[in-house]
Amino acid sequence: MSAQIGVTGLAVMGANLARNLARNGYTVALHNRSVEKTDALLEKHGSEGDFIRTESLQELVDSLEKPRRVLIMVKAGAPVDSVIEQLEPLLEAGDIIIDAGNSHYEDTRRREAALAEKNLHFVGVGVSGGEEGALLGPSIMPGGSRESYDSLGPMLEKISAKYNGEACCRWIGTDGAGHFVKMVHNGIEYADMQVIGEAYDVLRTAAGIEPADQAKIFSEWNTGTLSSFLIEITAEVLAHTDERTGKPFVDVVVDSAGQKGTGRWTVVSALELGSPTSGIAESVFARGLSSQRGQRELAQGILEGHEGTVELPEGFVEDVRLALYASKLVSYAQGIDMLTAAATEYGWDLKLDEIASLWRAGCIIRAELLDDIMKAYAGDERPANLLLAPAFAESIAGAVPAWRRVVATAVQLGIPVPVFSSSLAYYDGLRRKRLPAALTQGLRDLFGAHTYNRVDAEGTFHTLWGEDRSEVEAVDTH
Amino acid sequence: MSAQIGVTGLAVMGANLARNLARNGYTVALHNRSVEKTDALLEKHGSEGDFIRTESLQELVDSLEKPRRVLIMVKAGAPVDSVIEQLEPLLEAGDIIIDAGNSHYEDTRRREAALAEKNLHFVGVGVSGGEEGALLGPSIMPGGSRESYDSLGPMLEKISAKYNGEACCRWIGTDGAGHFVKMVHNGIEYADMQVIGEAYDVLRTAAGIEPADQAKIFSEWNTGTLSSFLIEITAEVLAHTDERTGKPFVDVVVDSAGQKGTGRWTVVSALELGSPTSGIAESVFARGLSSQRGQRELAQGILEGHEGTVELPEGFVEDVRLALYASKLVSYAQGIDMLTAAATEYGWDLKLDEIASLWRAGCIIRAELLDDIMKAYAGDERPANLLLAPAFAESIAGAVPAWRRVVATAVQLGIPVPVFSSSLAYYDGLRRKRLPAALTQGLRDLFGAHTYNRVDAEGTFHTLWGEDRSEVEAVDTH
Repeated sequence: MSAQIGVTGLAVMGANLARNLARNGYTVALHNRSVEKTDALLEKHGSEGDFIRTESLQELVDSLEKPRRVLIMVKAGAPVDSVIEQLEPLLEAGDIIIDAGNSHYEDTRRREAALAEKNLHFVGVGVSGGEEGALLGPSIMPGGSRESYDSLGPMLEKISAKYNGEACCRWIGTDGAGHFVKMVHNGIEYADMQVIGEAYDVLRTAAGIEPADQAKIFSEWNTGTLSSFLIEITAEVLAHTDERTGKPFVDVVVDSAGQKGTGRWTVVSALELGSPTSGIAESVFARGLSSQRGQRELAQGILEGHEGTVELPEGFVEDVRLALYASKLVSYAQGIDMLTAAATEYGWDLKLDEIASLWRAGCIIRAELLDDIMKAYAGDERPANLLLAPAFAESIAGAVPAWRRVVATAVQLGIPVPVFSSSLAYYDGLRRKRLPAALTQGLRDLFGAHTYNRVDAEGTFHTLWGEDRSEVEAVDTH
Repeated sequence: MSAQIGVTGLAVMGANLARNLARNGYTVALHNRSVEKTDALLEKHGSEGDFIRTESLQELVDSLEKPRRVLIMVKAGAPVDSVIEQLEPLLEAGDIIIDAGNSHYEDTRRREAALAEKNLHFVGVGVSGGEEGALLGPSIMPGGSRESYDSLGPMLEKISAKYNGEACCRWIGTDGAGHFVKMVHNGIEYADMQVIGEAYDVLRTAAGIEPADQAKIFSEWNTGTLSSFLIEITAEVLAHTDERTGKPFVDVVVDSAGQKGTGRWTVVSALELGSPTSGIAESVFARGLSSQRGQRELAQGILEGHEGTVELPEGFVEDVRLALYASKLVSYAQGIDMLTAAATEYGWDLKLDEIASLWRAGCIIRAELLDDIMKAYAGDERPANLLLAPAFAESIAGAVPAWRRVVATAVQLGIPVPVFSSSLAYYDGLRRKRLPAALTQGLRDLFGAHTYNRVDAEGTFHTLWGEDRSEVEAVDTH
């Protein structure tokens, strides 16, 4: 008996993917650096399907049908390079190495190029859905060559999450495209969680709604346009009472949010691409600030709130829902803008409708909204910005007055709403006829001779600020 | 006759630094890849001091007293490596190569380490002040070894800007410290310009104050706590009338702000350091958004403002001044936080008072405020955050109510104020007792078993969300 795929690295994520494959009828060869994990998996779950136990990478490779498929699930970074280095001499032309970990897409691009020279396929695969998703059906974002997908795709589609029967797995694009898209997914996840936190804070602080009552509000929101996994579990977390103290669970948790780095990667990449991904950036910074506990404790004793007084408008809870919705939409618009910029930069033919479609189930940001986003990009005319798609232009227009009220209220009451306000600034910046960037250009021309363009003439100009302030045509030499 | 320093790369910045050195009594050897530039400089300015004309790097090196000092002023990136590669075999132990360009500090760290192995000093020097500053006295931020500063420092101090007679040049720290500090300077410059733009936009759109009248307001602001080069030239730019059309100059300039990349570098570095530098990030993104002209034009026809109505509070102009001041202070606080994080990360003993002191003159962000910042860090007890220094805690407290009014007003009127609002969110995030990051941690624990800490017990915990929701002590294995 030979296996259709081998998995090396059997920590929870790798083990669950291996089990998912076996439960879907594939014969799976198993390998782990220490054989104990392999045996533990076989002992506990060996009856779920056909597994082949191996003790070395050589044995793993020998147990596979050709072309061989070897899936690596080890810690991102040097460990991935190490496993590749060990595997490469054991493989032959046409074999496929799959990295299903959270690797940086630039690493994936580098590895793919190096292995392509040796006629090996290297497929960086983004997998979202956590441990449970890995077992029961994650959202899967494979990169690598189109040819490798012909051989690998059917297996990945089979083990992926399904949305109305459709597999949440599509070939994303060459080399690092899969890991890039997964990274942006994670960035959007940061923003999604932050806007939920801001809504919760505003409801609690401005409207005095306790967590248990907010749980009901979020449950109700989960039946409408906000319907999503994260809203659903927000209700669950807010409803939970701490068993030790009898207090709301959320009140006994230290308010410093951790991060694993993919949100940060997303913003760095957005900066390099020149894409204004402010919502994700503010989310990353909000986590960072929350973790500066020393400074925060000192500040609590020193900095004063000087809150204003505001009469809450009627229908304030609905206002908050709309502010959350609009801010979330901006995060998606910014994430998609980044994908568009990356497609140009890296030569990927990213299909935005397909990407939205495979986020509809299995992954952390799964949401009804993604079905609408898919439809917005399904036609021949892709909107230049998600907010400009007719359906979204209309739905955000309906939210704008409430959004403004909520941000203005939070600002007066001393409630930090960095993503609500940043997203609104993005919306206003995008739609306004004139921006103060004209003044910025004037200043840059004055102190650095950086030149400017005119609204009424072609060419590049410079004003002789230090002389008679006449204008000259200029070549930007900086 | 031998020269005390050689300069290679005689575009405007290099030429002006060479002239500045000569005008201060140093004999300067000149070199440029094409000798025409050298001759043009000598023809125009040869009488300003003692220059030695050379046609090759060998000649340049031969003309220098020992230890040799060679200042490179070429485009950042590969050209710097290329010049170093050519110079290195011509030099001997103890000689000093100075890179005065806008190099990335990581490049400087790499070059310094490589040349140290060959017993050569490599000094990355941040120079701010533009072309005019280079000639008349810039703010100078030298990194590299302390030993190299003994030889080089007096010359740099002599040609630097002076603030009340004090040189705006101090040894910053080893390897890339100088270029790092210069990078943060530029990041703060982005935020400084953006908050000026936001103030201008609010005064124009909310209060209907035309540019010429705003020029008077900015001139007046320049006499108070906002007194600074950028406020001064804002008045100058706003007062300027376009000669072609008779319109305010600022109205004929295309409102897309360019960037050379150092703002972006700052934010990338802040992300890597985990320092929440949201004001600089929003400034970079605001420029990026302003440059997405295609999307903006489409959006203008589609997205609606739905502005609210607001009665402007009395004293609105003063409110805007205070909002600008407070936002500016936050940008400085964030930039300094980043310096503190970098000092730990890279092992630099950064003296924050000295850094503030050398930004007081010569550079683009020069401002009265920097004298106060210097004083805040001059004592034995460095504040954990600039805003917590007694003088600044007081001055920002006086600005908070106005700041809230201005942001709330702008938000209602559809005026994008990304840095005003982001800075206020940072202020509120820093000072509040509880942040919604607790909810974020709850969500992360539910979907990814990321664990959390409790406010009332040591240890790391996980709730068995999928089971009976009991709490267990956990080891974070992710």
